[in-house]
Amino acid sequence: MGIARSNSVVLAAVPRGVPRPDCFALREEEVPSLRDGDVLIQVSELSLDPYLRTAIVGRHLGDPVVPIGGVIPGRAIGRVVESRSPEIEAGTWVLAETGWRQYAVVRGAQVEPVRVPAGVPRSAALGALGMPGLTAYAAIERHLRPTAGETVVIGSAVGGVGSVAGQLARLSGARAVALVGDERKARTARELLGYDAAVVRTAADWRDQLARACPDGVHGYLHMGDAQTLDGVLAALAIGARVSLCGLMDQYNDGPRTMLAAGAVMRARAIVYGMVVYDHVDLAERHRAQVGELIRTGQLKLNEDRYSGLESAPEAFARLMSGQNTGKVIVEVAPPHLLS
Amino acid sequence: MGIARSNSVVLAAVPRGVPRPDCFALREEEVPSLRDGDVLIQVSELSLDPYLRTAIVGRHLGDPVVPIGGVIPGRAIGRVVESRSPEIEAGTWVLAETGWRQYAVVRGAQVEPVRVPAGVPRSAALGALGMPGLTAYAAIERHLRPTAGETVVIGSAVGGVGSVAGQLARLSGARAVALVGDERKARTARELLGYDAAVVRTAADWRDQLARACPDGVHGYLHMGDAQTLDGVLAALAIGARVSLCGLMDQYNDGPRTMLAAGAVMRARAIVYGMVVYDHVDLAERHRAQVGELIRTGQLKLNEDRYSGLESAPEAFARLMSGQNTGKVIVEVAPPHLLS
Repeated sequence: MGIARSNSVVLAAVPRGVPRPDCFALREEEVPSLRDGDVLIQVSELSLDPYLRTAIVGRHLGDPVVPIGGVIPGRAIGRVVESRSPEIEAGTWVLAETGWRQYAVVRGAQVEPVRVPAGVPRSAALGALGMPGLTAYAAIERHLRPTAGETVVIGSAVGGVGSVAGQLARLSGARAVALVGDERKARTARELLGYDAAVVRTAADWRDQLARACPDGVHGYLHMGDAQTLDGVLAALAIGARVSLCGLMDQYNDGPRTMLAAGAVMRARAIVYGMVVYDHVDLAERHRAQVGELIRTGQLKLNEDRYSGLESAPEAFARLMSGQNTGKVIVEVAPPHLLS
Repeated sequence: MGIARSNSVVLAAVPRGVPRPDCFALREEEVPSLRDGDVLIQVSELSLDPYLRTAIVGRHLGDPVVPIGGVIPGRAIGRVVESRSPEIEAGTWVLAETGWRQYAVVRGAQVEPVRVPAGVPRSAALGALGMPGLTAYAAIERHLRPTAGETVVIGSAVGGVGSVAGQLARLSGARAVALVGDERKARTARELLGYDAAVVRTAADWRDQLARACPDGVHGYLHMGDAQTLDGVLAALAIGARVSLCGLMDQYNDGPRTMLAAGAVMRARAIVYGMVVYDHVDLAERHRAQVGELIRTGQLKLNEDRYSGLESAPEAFARLMSGQNTGKVIVEVAPPHLLS
């Protein structure tokens, strides 16, 4: 092919607090030539996920994992436009760690072909059938274990992880209650994703609303959010509740450590799990098969928040990290239909 | 018999913070006459346990469960000196909720005969073979699940619960590390109870000492103590650690809510359990049989902190609630040999 230059997004300033778009800059870079074993990928859709905040900055301010001027890491779907790898043919749609780029050179051994059932959009491989979906699947399956008649509360309920977790909880026979940041997302939760109720966590009386939505208490809670939300839900736990700590949004954004009330855990005789998806990759095949079938048959809905063009990634990421995303965040770097 | 009057300990003032001895007062009371179904018990040994702090005051200051002038609740061993219950004969040694009294009238249906193996002191029924021992047994069996080569850290390591938990952890093949309040208890932990190491949690460098005592991290932690201790141990958790929240000492004493770091739980992919012993009474028979045999054969040592006379109970309780007890706290109301 011979792609000489391509756009990428680099770190312009170390983010403090919620990342601002001007922490990032668009920069043209040279596309390196392929060595044996490499593939050249044209990126189609880029996934933005909260874990990237930590991947960029690391745990200490001023000590970024990505240096100033370095390309932002990230997972994407794209098409192999040139291959010097015996494992991957040119033309193959793949999932790869490309970073925020239009074109990326990656080792062929480190990419995997996109596998989604017929009729399911490829971007599902970044969301409901990818790491966010596996996170939801494992949290429901191994931590919350909802049973019919129980009530499960899902934080960030319409996002990449939450939208899948809520629907899986309902499919298991439990009632699902969404915690969301605004009324628009509350509607999405109820109308698109089938939650039994949705509570806007910024409302002054949200704890009362939660109590009304969970008259028998909270049996399962998937936590992705801030410390106040955690505190409010823990106070509403039913006896024997399960809590999966999946995302600490304010802590990611350099806020104070998220602390949880030990007394609430004891009072509910609750079990609290620290969730890191990499511990659950043994479930990946089963997750992909089951959730793939649920999507194909229309029982589980995708909820994407799509942005157009690589240059929109900084703004999209800032919105994600301040809870303004309306679904799984996907940046269309090159619209898929142009690559087919 | 006809016991007309007997001593009891009543609430003199609502405790604030760590209870002081002058919150209690010795008072002579009339022993009521027996109705059908009642038994009269002469108390031999009274058990003092941290949960009593909450039982006395309840959750809100100024709203005590025990009224001023009311007798302090408590569990004891004693001998039935008169029975109008068909279930219990006079002369039987029983476990009962007597309160802090020399003589108590209790419903026969609510007492149980003391059952300890031959050669084991009856007081074990209040400690290692009673509720504290069951707490330890269930926490080890169901929460910490230590395996050979793992390291388990036990808070309040020489007390009623901790002394049993540490020895059970070692018997399961794990290394056991004691957290204690002073050097004297550290010696008890190492020399009497067989802990592999003991860390004095008030030492300035206790976190470093803990790290040295747990070179592979902490795989299991039984928490009974203050928030600072909890924070330090959580920071030292190994991947996949289990934590049982068993006692929140400073919170019991009206301190601030004990909060735990959600990030530490996530980083370790830990599981945190709220422990309330009443959820585990199904284990009581097995606990009594197994731990009874371990005591009888000398594999598990009892560690009691004994006080003499009912009038010593307020001082003993104040010491317990400020962590100055040196073992399971037993008040000898009437020395057992005088009742036999």
